[in-house]
Amino acid sequence: MASHSTRRSEIFGQPIAVINIGLAGFAESLRQQGVQLIDVDWHPPPEGIPRLTHTKSGVSIDEANAEAVRRIMAGRPVILGLDLAKRVIPGITERTILHAGPPIHWERMCGPTRGAVMGALVYEGLAASPEDAANLAASGEISFDPCHHHHAVGPMAGVISPSMPVWIIENTEFGNRTYCTLNEGLGKVLRYGAFGEDVYRRLHWMADVLYPTLADALERSDPIDLRAMIAQALHMGDECHNRNRAGTSLFLRTITPWLTRTCEDGERLAQVIEFINGNDHFFLNLSMPAAKAMLEPAEGIEGSTILTVMARNGTDFGIKQAGDPNRWFIAPAGIVEGLFLPGFSAKDANPDIGDSTITETAGFGGFAMAAAPAIASFVGGTAQDAINSTNEMYEICFTEHDHFTIPALDFRGTPLGIDVRLVMETGILPKLNTGIAHKNPGIGMVGAGVLRAPKECFTDAFEVIRDW
Amino acid sequence: MASHSTRRSEIFGQPIAVINIGLAGFAESLRQQGVQLIDVDWHPPPEGIPRLTHTKSGVSIDEANAEAVRRIMAGRPVILGLDLAKRVIPGITERTILHAGPPIHWERMCGPTRGAVMGALVYEGLAASPEDAANLAASGEISFDPCHHHHAVGPMAGVISPSMPVWIIENTEFGNRTYCTLNEGLGKVLRYGAFGEDVYRRLHWMADVLYPTLADALERSDPIDLRAMIAQALHMGDECHNRNRAGTSLFLRTITPWLTRTCEDGERLAQVIEFINGNDHFFLNLSMPAAKAMLEPAEGIEGSTILTVMARNGTDFGIKQAGDPNRWFIAPAGIVEGLFLPGFSAKDANPDIGDSTITETAGFGGFAMAAAPAIASFVGGTAQDAINSTNEMYEICFTEHDHFTIPALDFRGTPLGIDVRLVMETGILPKLNTGIAHKNPGIGMVGAGVLRAPKECFTDAFEVIRDW
Repeated sequence: MASHSTRRSEIFGQPIAVINIGLAGFAESLRQQGVQLIDVDWHPPPEGIPRLTHTKSGVSIDEANAEAVRRIMAGRPVILGLDLAKRVIPGITERTILHAGPPIHWERMCGPTRGAVMGALVYEGLAASPEDAANLAASGEISFDPCHHHHAVGPMAGVISPSMPVWIIENTEFGNRTYCTLNEGLGKVLRYGAFGEDVYRRLHWMADVLYPTLADALERSDPIDLRAMIAQALHMGDECHNRNRAGTSLFLRTITPWLTRTCEDGERLAQVIEFINGNDHFFLNLSMPAAKAMLEPAEGIEGSTILTVMARNGTDFGIKQAGDPNRWFIAPAGIVEGLFLPGFSAKDANPDIGDSTITETAGFGGFAMAAAPAIASFVGGTAQDAINSTNEMYEICFTEHDHFTIPALDFRGTPLGIDVRLVMETGILPKLNTGIAHKNPGIGMVGAGVLRAPKECFTDAFEVIRDW
Repeated sequence: MASHSTRRSEIFGQPIAVINIGLAGFAESLRQQGVQLIDVDWHPPPEGIPRLTHTKSGVSIDEANAEAVRRIMAGRPVILGLDLAKRVIPGITERTILHAGPPIHWERMCGPTRGAVMGALVYEGLAASPEDAANLAASGEISFDPCHHHHAVGPMAGVISPSMPVWIIENTEFGNRTYCTLNEGLGKVLRYGAFGEDVYRRLHWMADVLYPTLADALERSDPIDLRAMIAQALHMGDECHNRNRAGTSLFLRTITPWLTRTCEDGERLAQVIEFINGNDHFFLNLSMPAAKAMLEPAEGIEGSTILTVMARNGTDFGIKQAGDPNRWFIAPAGIVEGLFLPGFSAKDANPDIGDSTITETAGFGGFAMAAAPAIASFVGGTAQDAINSTNEMYEICFTEHDHFTIPALDFRGTPLGIDVRLVMETGILPKLNTGIAHKNPGIGMVGAGVLRAPKECFTDAFEVIRDW
């Protein structure tokens, strides 16, 4: 009630309202004093950033971008099934390891990516110990490649090795397929760079029990519509990047009747369901390849400045734009501001890592923070911060999503289509939320938080657009 | 962003802000014009409403109320199991029909309550047709009694007949048990006053398949903690009265491993899970008896002006207060403002009906609207209306809930403990949300909406408190 929150001035005898134009710092200090405030977001016009409207060959950038977001929104990602990576992901061999983010060699890999690679090589039986694995990885006998070069995405270290089971997602509107591993849970897990017996045991159980049980159920069920499921989860307090409790619930509700129809071993079924029920991030490994599947059809639209990829390998941050889909623009990965698990602090944190920023690229995740106020307990901040965060992202997005909406904003569509031009014109960088891995191999998760994408990627991309 | 939403005056060249004190109508018309507004909620002091602090025997009302809300918050309602009403609900016979709201005779029953009674008598085999049933009901051979007189609650018509299966909820902190039927779904269902073959067939399937399957699973599972489940659902966009999608999901996540461990018939299991998955209101019939179980221990605290019951039978609205738990204060049931299903309108609507206002009485439901902005698509209104609604209810509640919190209000506790004194002092009446039944027997649901409790109940209760 205003009568509670409004400070009354002793001089004026009534509440004071302030209009702040420009520098947010003034507004912030007034807000902290409980003053009612209208904060006008105003920046001086950027210098040296012209509005780019057409390529040299005369293609309208706005029209190209409209086509890009049209395709993204038209996408219908469904779960087709599960299979082993080596059987379905194009272009990988028994000695390929995929990782998150832009390309990187073993020598430049960060601790958690190294840890995950070492763990995966032991899991594959290619090395007897993490030390062995490190030697093998350094020997040149393993080919490392970004997930994104193989229609795949991976959270955090994002390591996919040949015998891991992967989700197969098909965008039925365009026919493209994408891939992602099964989510292991939080804590001491491979994707956060952990290795060791517990990690291998879980991965083997996932391959031996979870995968075939789910695969059988998916073979009988209708294809599961992930766009509809993400849309529903956004109405249930998820943003489908770092909060996936609703998505995980909705997936379970949908799959369990098919689990009971296809598996007669009640105890095995119970363990499969309890594993998923015990891991509220299970749906992340579905929301990510769904995002990738929706974004891919926009790749290669001449003149489009809409991002189709944002991804980090823990060392570098890379983006790609629709009009130039084979080119990475790369800058150092940023430092995450966040909440840390007991016993850990900022000094333990690896820089920003993972392909999960594909969710923000597709118009949800951090861009839909306003839908997920409860995420504050995971990544920090207040409910108002969450609303502000989404509101700010509208400034750099080409449109609002037709299918993903935010109840708290009266069902306004989420910000969709990060436009390199708008990022440069406004100086507003994409705001992401993310888990935080320990900087050393073998340890795992230490926290979660928020940060912005690095400006250099956008500056470089913009220079290239000027030459189009 | 303010730069988008702020109208600029052509004269002043900058946004205009208005401070409105008092009459909300002025604020509303300015808001419709998009003017930035600070709306100060100010009422003239109430006349003739003294602050009541002690009973004549010297009991501190504040202390009594503090004890009441302490007990309510200390309650731990868990699902103990399921059984037939006649075997577990105290004081009912083969010829008892329980109904929602305060006591009422057949002659004064509204259409949907009559419809549900008629349907239940056919379902029980006590009548061959709805017409037969109406004659039997009018004959005096059936004893009608409020659910609330038997530790039970029922949504809408709230009819419980002897052979219906009911949830058994135990408040493990105090040992009291409460009861509620299984939720049938929306539309043409008994609790909305519908009868007919479809209704009986569903009720028989629920008794023959759903009930024993769930009961077996519950016998093996640990007791399911409903306070924790409601608390989680409030973080997932439910308010657990008219939005129960998250609660239903969380219940399913928890029970399915025990379903698969206790039932070997995969197809039967699949049908049970699909029935629950197909009915997002399934959890309502758990949140209601959980609320009742938490409220009962507050009954009988001398000097407490906290409500322990708000309930409607479609003709009358009744309340009870903790300090005088056997006495109903009754007024005519109100008219619901809402959204109607296609083909129906306000003229088809029965007045307010059902025991489900036990949720608001226990500090959630309509009082937690701010947690559930997506409910606007079911009961109408905007996201801001939902926030305002919860904020207003703090004015008439004795405290804020320790365990039920609202992420969008930075995890502020929900308004808990409707204090008759505060209702009278502020003139603010409890705001409820509810489904809407057709006014004629045999039809069913026609919509959903919001309304306020009638003032007369509180005026009468207040007069009694003055004599304590």
